[in-house]
Amino acid sequence: MTRVLGVDPGLHETGWAVIDGASASPRLVASGVIRTQPGAMLPLRLKAIHAELESVIKEHAPEACAMEEMFFTTIAVTVRATLQARGVALLALAQAGHPVHEYNPKTVKLTLTGSGRAEKAQMQAVVQKALGLADRLRPNDVADAAAIALCHMRAGRAKGLKVLDSWGAR
Amino acid sequence: MTRVLGVDPGLHETGWAVIDGASASPRLVASGVIRTQPGAMLPLRLKAIHAELESVIKEHAPEACAMEEMFFTTIAVTVRATLQARGVALLALAQAGHPVHEYNPKTVKLTLTGSGRAEKAQMQAVVQKALGLADRLRPNDVADAAAIALCHMRAGRAKGLKVLDSWGAR
Repeated sequence: MTRVLGVDPGLHETGWAVIDGASASPRLVASGVIRTQPGAMLPLRLKAIHAELESVIKEHAPEACAMEEMFFTTIAVTVRATLQARGVALLALAQAGHPVHEYNPKTVKLTLTGSGRAEKAQMQAVVQKALGLADRLRPNDVADAAAIALCHMRAGRAKGLKVLDSWGAR
Repeated sequence: MTRVLGVDPGLHETGWAVIDGASASPRLVASGVIRTQPGAMLPLRLKAIHAELESVIKEHAPEACAMEEMFFTTIAVTVRATLQARGVALLALAQAGHPVHEYNPKTVKLTLTGSGRAEKAQMQAVVQKALGLADRLRPNDVADAAAIALCHMRAGRAKGLKVLDSWGAR
């Protein structure tokens, strides 16, 4: 464990430091801050963080990496996990050069069923019918993904319905 | 907007669906679920999600992507943003093939200062001294990153101090 990269992640500022512990006293090899534009879209900011960290790793070749645990008693484990997965998903979309459009759950329901409070089963049925499928889409995650894609298609065509395509710093 | 990819992200299951809207009625081109191992380390699970989404995008070439907004009134905007940035940082480390070690803030403080409740200024001073720097590391994110790297170095050497290197499903 001679060279360790420490990372303190954040959307606005991600601090990093490479420390070499080969000699008796540890030495700071390099350090820096990855800053992203507050006004830029979230996927693009995530892309910038990923790309810059990638080049830090490439340049300084650490043997191990360390990060602080983020522990919030107010946030459920699943929500924390989902947000981290979401960051990675947004990154993949941004890296492919695709614009990412965001819709809140109510907008998806309203666009597909006419009611912002539609139940899961109703949403499933609407998706099945819209796509002319013999059966419902399973599991629910897939049906949800299809509903969001359909929402985007309809929202893009409909007049007067605001398309939320800016991500901002959420 | 003929081909839209909808994504419903999650650490355990990420649903996706590609819908073609070129004809009068939209058609489901492909759909699936990206599943990750509940027992696997978080960075590796994020890596799997990213890699599979990347191949979905490559295979189906959507023109636009849509995702549901995750809105939790109980989670501060900055925390939500940080968790998404953290996911991307962990991904970059995992993609480089590095093990990622995690330390909670108390462990970092305890390891560096002997007290789990050390103040920012004290941590700054300890980092400066340990690295033999003429001045303090600025901004705080960088000092924090250096503290985490130093913590990992010392924890790895110390006997009896548990090295938290498993991520699990956080």
